[in-house]
Amino acid sequence: MSMSSSLTRTIMIGLLLLGLAGPIVTSQAADKTGKQSVVIQVSENNPAIWNLALNNAENIQEALGKGNVNIEIVAYGPGINMLKFDSEAAPRLKKASNDGVALIACATTMRKQKLTANDLDEHIKVVPAGVIEIMNKQRDGWAYIKP
Amino acid sequence: MSMSSSLTRTIMIGLLLLGLAGPIVTSQAADKTGKQSVVIQVSENNPAIWNLALNNAENIQEALGKGNVNIEIVAYGPGINMLKFDSEAAPRLKKASNDGVALIACATTMRKQKLTANDLDEHIKVVPAGVIEIMNKQRDGWAYIKP
Amino acid sequence: MSMSSSLTRTIMIGLLLLGLAGPIVTSQAADKTGKQSVVIQVSENNPAIWNLALNNAENIQEALGKGNVNIEIVAYGPGINMLKFDSEAAPRLKKASNDGVALIACATTMRKQKLTANDLDEHIKVVPAGVIEIMNKQRDGWAYIKP
Repeated sequence: MSMSSSLTRTIMIGLLLLGLAGPIVTSQAADKTGKQSVVIQVSENNPAIWNLALNNAENIQEALGKGNVNIEIVAYGPGINMLKFDSEAAPRLKKASNDGVALIACATTMRKQKLTANDLDEHIKVVPAGVIEIMNKQRDGWAYIKP
Repeated sequence: MSMSSSLTRTIMIGLLLLGLAGPIVTSQAADKTGKQSVVIQVSENNPAIWNLALNNAENIQEALGKGNVNIEIVAYGPGINMLKFDSEAAPRLKKASNDGVALIACATTMRKQKLTANDLDEHIKVVPAGVIEIMNKQRDGWAYIKP
Repeated sequence: MSMSSSLTRTIMIGLLLLGLAGPIVTSQAADKTGKQSVVIQVSENNPAIWNLALNNAENIQEALGKGNVNIEIVAYGPGINMLKFDSEAAPRLKKASNDGVALIACATTMRKQKLTANDLDEHIKVVPAGVIEIMNKQRDGWAYIKP
């Protein structure tokens, strides 16, 4: 085959590869399907902060559409109280969960505070360490908000 | 053409492509012109935090040079009070704005608190949702600071 | 050579290049050696926050292994008090430093508060501006945690 056709093809394949590489940039704050994504940290024992975190989640869903954004609220340390079944935030947790907001509790914190799954609202998912969950999400390109 | 020359050329083009792909890494915390960029979140009704945010902006400009860094302060939730025309921070807002620091208010918060543009300092820009502005900036590679 | 063998080789080299490009994605929150990396900000004069920051560092090292993660705690503004030789956190600083956690003080804050290296715990490293250190780490792909 001719040199030029080989060169052309190589360049085209190169551009194709760039096309494949392209999503690397836009994957920041977006998952593999192109959704915007955000992890919200709650590490304070303060109902005003809990409500602000839930307001943030609601406002993000209103702005982008519930189906177009991944939202996780990760509670650890003194923030774990937000996710107890009898917390001031409990009435809002079911709605948030139904709306697709993932509510995540830190097992390390639970162990230190002698809490079990029975102490938490029923809509909570538990991860081994909240702070690792937040690091992993940032590594995967999720935005980070601490209300 | 010979296999080796084709291989060499393909590798060279590949390296060129890697060169093009390179900026993907350095685009983190930098805009398209290569400027460092940072979004500073203010979501607390606390003048000490407002001053710390403004100190942060000043120190960043001193360290990098005003022309070499993009800085946005985004106020939402209880932090909106920082940007009112009669806030304790007001005397510093004009200087920050003149120095090129963008001061951003959240329209969602304004609506909930029944605030209009007339209630805010004159140097403020309003965005539909402060939390979305912060997410977008992180997606675009800006650093995030919550003082 | 045949077109198909050239195409195959080009694609294989392309996949190799993608393999080289791959680390670009995973370099987020990881350094050049592939380590996970996190910068923890302390900007509050609050021993409960200082302990939470140190707990975070410990939990991250327990989860990932001390040798597999870079951790920096950067103190600035009112948070500088964490790093004084007589702070409530002092007894934990030596252990954190021995465990490989970098403890960083902001020289800009030190100057404003008329502090010298003699006022700080012996395990502290000083940088010109804490907030710039945090921005640089995020630019380099480190995760950011504000406890």
